[in-house]
Amino acid sequence: MRAAVLEGVGRIQLEERPRPEPGPREVLVRVASVGTCGSDVHYYEHGRIGDFVVESPLVLGHEPSGTVVVAGPGVSRDRVGRRVSVEPGVPDFTCRQCRAGRYNLCPSMRFFGTPPIDGAFCEYVVTHEEFAHPVPDTLSDDAAALIEPLSVGVWACWKARVEPGTRVLVTGAGPVGLLCMQTALAFGATDVLITDVNSVRLGVARDLGASETLNVGETRLSDAGFEPDVLLECSGHPAAIGEAIRAVGRAGRVVLIGMGGDEIPLPLSHVQTRELEVTGTFRYAGTWPAAIALAAAGRVQLDALVTGHYGLADVEQALTAGTRDPKLVKAVVRPQE
Amino acid sequence: MRAAVLEGVGRIQLEERPRPEPGPREVLVRVASVGTCGSDVHYYEHGRIGDFVVESPLVLGHEPSGTVVVAGPGVSRDRVGRRVSVEPGVPDFTCRQCRAGRYNLCPSMRFFGTPPIDGAFCEYVVTHEEFAHPVPDTLSDDAAALIEPLSVGVWACWKARVEPGTRVLVTGAGPVGLLCMQTALAFGATDVLITDVNSVRLGVARDLGASETLNVGETRLSDAGFEPDVLLECSGHPAAIGEAIRAVGRAGRVVLIGMGGDEIPLPLSHVQTRELEVTGTFRYAGTWPAAIALAAAGRVQLDALVTGHYGLADVEQALTAGTRDPKLVKAVVRPQE
Amino acid sequence: MRAAVLEGVGRIQLEERPRPEPGPREVLVRVASVGTCGSDVHYYEHGRIGDFVVESPLVLGHEPSGTVVVAGPGVSRDRVGRRVSVEPGVPDFTCRQCRAGRYNLCPSMRFFGTPPIDGAFCEYVVTHEEFAHPVPDTLSDDAAALIEPLSVGVWACWKARVEPGTRVLVTGAGPVGLLCMQTALAFGATDVLITDVNSVRLGVARDLGASETLNVGETRLSDAGFEPDVLLECSGHPAAIGEAIRAVGRAGRVVLIGMGGDEIPLPLSHVQTRELEVTGTFRYAGTWPAAIALAAAGRVQLDALVTGHYGLADVEQALTAGTRDPKLVKAVVRPQE
Amino acid sequence: MRAAVLEGVGRIQLEERPRPEPGPREVLVRVASVGTCGSDVHYYEHGRIGDFVVESPLVLGHEPSGTVVVAGPGVSRDRVGRRVSVEPGVPDFTCRQCRAGRYNLCPSMRFFGTPPIDGAFCEYVVTHEEFAHPVPDTLSDDAAALIEPLSVGVWACWKARVEPGTRVLVTGAGPVGLLCMQTALAFGATDVLITDVNSVRLGVARDLGASETLNVGETRLSDAGFEPDVLLECSGHPAAIGEAIRAVGRAGRVVLIGMGGDEIPLPLSHVQTRELEVTGTFRYAGTWPAAIALAAAGRVQLDALVTGHYGLADVEQALTAGTRDPKLVKAVVRPQE
Repeated sequence: MRAAVLEGVGRIQLEERPRPEPGPREVLVRVASVGTCGSDVHYYEHGRIGDFVVESPLVLGHEPSGTVVVAGPGVSRDRVGRRVSVEPGVPDFTCRQCRAGRYNLCPSMRFFGTPPIDGAFCEYVVTHEEFAHPVPDTLSDDAAALIEPLSVGVWACWKARVEPGTRVLVTGAGPVGLLCMQTALAFGATDVLITDVNSVRLGVARDLGASETLNVGETRLSDAGFEPDVLLECSGHPAAIGEAIRAVGRAGRVVLIGMGGDEIPLPLSHVQTRELEVTGTFRYAGTWPAAIALAAAGRVQLDALVTGHYGLADVEQALTAGTRDPKLVKAVVRPQE
Repeated sequence: MRAAVLEGVGRIQLEERPRPEPGPREVLVRVASVGTCGSDVHYYEHGRIGDFVVESPLVLGHEPSGTVVVAGPGVSRDRVGRRVSVEPGVPDFTCRQCRAGRYNLCPSMRFFGTPPIDGAFCEYVVTHEEFAHPVPDTLSDDAAALIEPLSVGVWACWKARVEPGTRVLVTGAGPVGLLCMQTALAFGATDVLITDVNSVRLGVARDLGASETLNVGETRLSDAGFEPDVLLECSGHPAAIGEAIRAVGRAGRVVLIGMGGDEIPLPLSHVQTRELEVTGTFRYAGTWPAAIALAAAGRVQLDALVTGHYGLADVEQALTAGTRDPKLVKAVVRPQE
Repeated sequence: MRAAVLEGVGRIQLEERPRPEPGPREVLVRVASVGTCGSDVHYYEHGRIGDFVVESPLVLGHEPSGTVVVAGPGVSRDRVGRRVSVEPGVPDFTCRQCRAGRYNLCPSMRFFGTPPIDGAFCEYVVTHEEFAHPVPDTLSDDAAALIEPLSVGVWACWKARVEPGTRVLVTGAGPVGLLCMQTALAFGATDVLITDVNSVRLGVARDLGASETLNVGETRLSDAGFEPDVLLECSGHPAAIGEAIRAVGRAGRVVLIGMGGDEIPLPLSHVQTRELEVTGTFRYAGTWPAAIALAAAGRVQLDALVTGHYGLADVEQALTAGTRDPKLVKAVVRPQE
Repeated sequence: MRAAVLEGVGRIQLEERPRPEPGPREVLVRVASVGTCGSDVHYYEHGRIGDFVVESPLVLGHEPSGTVVVAGPGVSRDRVGRRVSVEPGVPDFTCRQCRAGRYNLCPSMRFFGTPPIDGAFCEYVVTHEEFAHPVPDTLSDDAAALIEPLSVGVWACWKARVEPGTRVLVTGAGPVGLLCMQTALAFGATDVLITDVNSVRLGVARDLGASETLNVGETRLSDAGFEPDVLLECSGHPAAIGEAIRAVGRAGRVVLIGMGGDEIPLPLSHVQTRELEVTGTFRYAGTWPAAIALAAAGRVQLDALVTGHYGLADVEQALTAGTRDPKLVKAVVRPQE
């Protein structure tokens, strides 16, 4: 099969590789769509993210959808032919974190496109049958791929306990911010303010249902008079984070989703006197059914985020599109085209 | 002012009464709309509900909206002229239950239309300023009144932890069931089955967005193949309750909202082997802001539930309309008309 | 190896069986002590518990401790020689319930001494390495075995949210009740009332630290003036359950641990007006580390519950001891003796 | 009555003041013991804490116990003569935070010894009857006073969800740290490590039951090999906080109790990849019953923390004792002596 392989910083080559074989309880999926993510771009440009270092050729891509074509040993034949959204990280299932239902914190997690595990910018992938989630035919291949970033939003809203009546501030209107915003609305929030310095993205946010948008390049958040119950931080900018946290009201929840520097300044006395809860997210656990349900019911718009399609030969184009075009939200790779 | 007074079982008379005066922290509200509720009907027909016995003339009605016309001592003058939805039970604020945030369980609760506290089938009511919740002008008087039963749904969905991905079974498509169903959808549920034996009401349910309806007079629930995560029980029928509980899946939540007999049979081994959580609701606490937000954002339909308007002189008509007309969902009394 | 095999109702025979071989990730444990449990007695006397029917010869016993003697493929050799408490149910790890951290609800659970899975009244057992929990040398073999019923108490206290300040009612002073009582005290409760009709058992309860005991054969619970926040129901008697639930205070939690009839009467209006939460327990998940910590720190007394030791040849004696001796609390089988 | 009044920075004078009169629902308490707290010292030395500035003469002291001597209007006469522990902050009861059960976050809180509300370094105080909590006679006056700082520990352990099996790190062995440590043990934790740079205090910690102590002036925390589930941060030192947070294991909880600078550095990627929950505490709500129960049952030692008694004339001595004597843990003022 063909695979787009990261051979070194800034260098991806199309290669022929053997098609993988599904092991016990695994399925082989012919990949239809793969969303590109900021972390793919980061590995491409820097060869590492924190402690994860690309030391040998690596296939990136961790937002795949497709169709089951082979069922491995122990898997029902009925799975073959099913369209699926692939949850890209398979834990060991048996460690203390897994047994407690926190499989996203499994120290032995094997996650697509994260060294040394290959990802989905290729024609076929294998995964555990329980991590190839069936999707209804009303969901497009692209939407099935974008269940992955939508899951980031679902996980964040669970952690933040978003529900009707919750006032939500989303900082950053990139793909993750736009999905967190949509997810917050789908969880029942009716008052969701999203901020960015990019007016184009804020326009997209309005089209997708934002209650309110704020260009923080023009107006300070502290002048907006918005006191959220929940902050979904998707910008990763240390200075913005501090200001956003100071806006949060008593007993509010802060979920740090955007990746930034190693340390951020935390306004201690504010956290104490308002008894804020601050946490961060690391991927997700158990989100696929809820995310698929929301997308299938039309409660969130996924296809609307896709601003470009690329073949396997053009993965570098897909990964660099964002730097060339500020209007770009989400580039999708379609390995079969 | 005029008030419709329950003088005895099955006997309501229109009387002149002194207009009440707001005390410290209280406001006087000119009543615009008052929803009628099954408990009003029950007091009218039986003179009691459980331990609450009507022993002297009583004004019923506990779902009022209106406009603040007088601000009592300690209340800002700015409140005058504001349209409000009145939360009908004021607790003592200081007991152990209140201090723990469970003011609905306050033993000293003073609740409208519950002996010996007069309710809102009259021209004016007084209440604590914090229990006269401002509503936006986009919300009709009727909708502002129906924030009360909507609050029952919000409270139930909180207890049941309804969210995207939760499969919900609502038993009973009366006003409370229809509102619980709508609330569950507004909390993000996409798969909500509602049951009744009344096809008309199930038709209303479909119009209001039910994912699925089931006439349990024709088809047994156990034949429907629906395994909910959450049961919102609004029928109050002991036999139906047992069957519905047996349908609930592992780790499911059962919220008993409908009032039935004093005892119901609980399928013990089912509750144990599936580790179901079973609870009941008693009114609500802190639901008004969320309920108003949902109604104002159009996430739930309240006006569509109103099937008749009645003046103060016709309160008996309003309370008996349901027995005459199976299509009736919610009768509203408008004291100023 | 020798095994005590249930050949039919009321008939256990000592047999020679091949010593089991540990598979991948499994360990072989030489059994030191096995607690006997009411469910062992029930299978022995009736051949079934609900839907679980003994249809072929079965080894009972699901409370084993022992020493790891062989490490299967993929298991560190360091495990050999470790004294362990064996958690007797191994789930499939990958189903929806397991992935959510509720592995006790796994439909594919393989549980010791439950048809058709053999248990621990034998010389050796195999189990998954993660379910053979190391214990410190300060813990006796018997105590290591009784970590299993202690886990029932830990699980119940988690469900009930017992903590300092919680008033707890434990109904039934059998082994499970005595352990729930001790666990509640260890979770910080200082006010724990335990009831039974057996004065001997109530005496044991007092010795083990009960704040208060009540012989409900002599004094009605409703006359005791005790309003608990939490009911840990360990009697399984339908009538007693109803009375105990009626005693629970507002916002209280009821955990149904004792197995009784298929249905119990639930006081609906009481559950509603007090907003009680009622749930049942089915085994436990993730309790071993906490239970071992409590026992090792001396916060609960396990050895004090053991009132008799039996060899493999005397398993029938162990299972029938309770009917002969009302003072018996917990019989322990020691297969190597 | 006599009162010790802070007249300016570093200047406290004994004055005669009128004895206060209890208003409706209030009681007059003759003060027996008042614990001194770091915040009292801070006001004495600096005249302010953050935004709270002493602008007119102020009576400090917010940890009083005593005896009810007068019952105000609406209070049962039975209260007179009762020994009580006084919860020193009375909220407005009716605001959104109070109605939600978070009365510690009430913006209108009136808190003893916090400008401009006078405290308890005087002979008599008045408070709301619900905030004068009866104590059993087995509790000394000093212990009844120290229910206040014990409440800080109870509140922290609730936020941190400490229970059996939880590994706890307490940083800082001052009075609050020692009480948090004892509280964690009383909540069922069996593995509690406490750190400080002061060996004397660590010795006290060992006497009070610490599982382990670490002098972080001699050994780095990161070398101790302790991975806690919970961090109760009582030192307030920004550098120490960062190091302590980095020690916390996956899904751990961090509760920031100690007051430090306005900002601390938060290790973002650590918080994210381990999904830590970080929060701060602001006083407490609803803790008195649990704290009194723990102290009365001997689960925590309060009298052992008292290292000096002072009369009203010696309040300055009490407040400066800590700087003179590193062995001092808790100075208590006894206004009647």
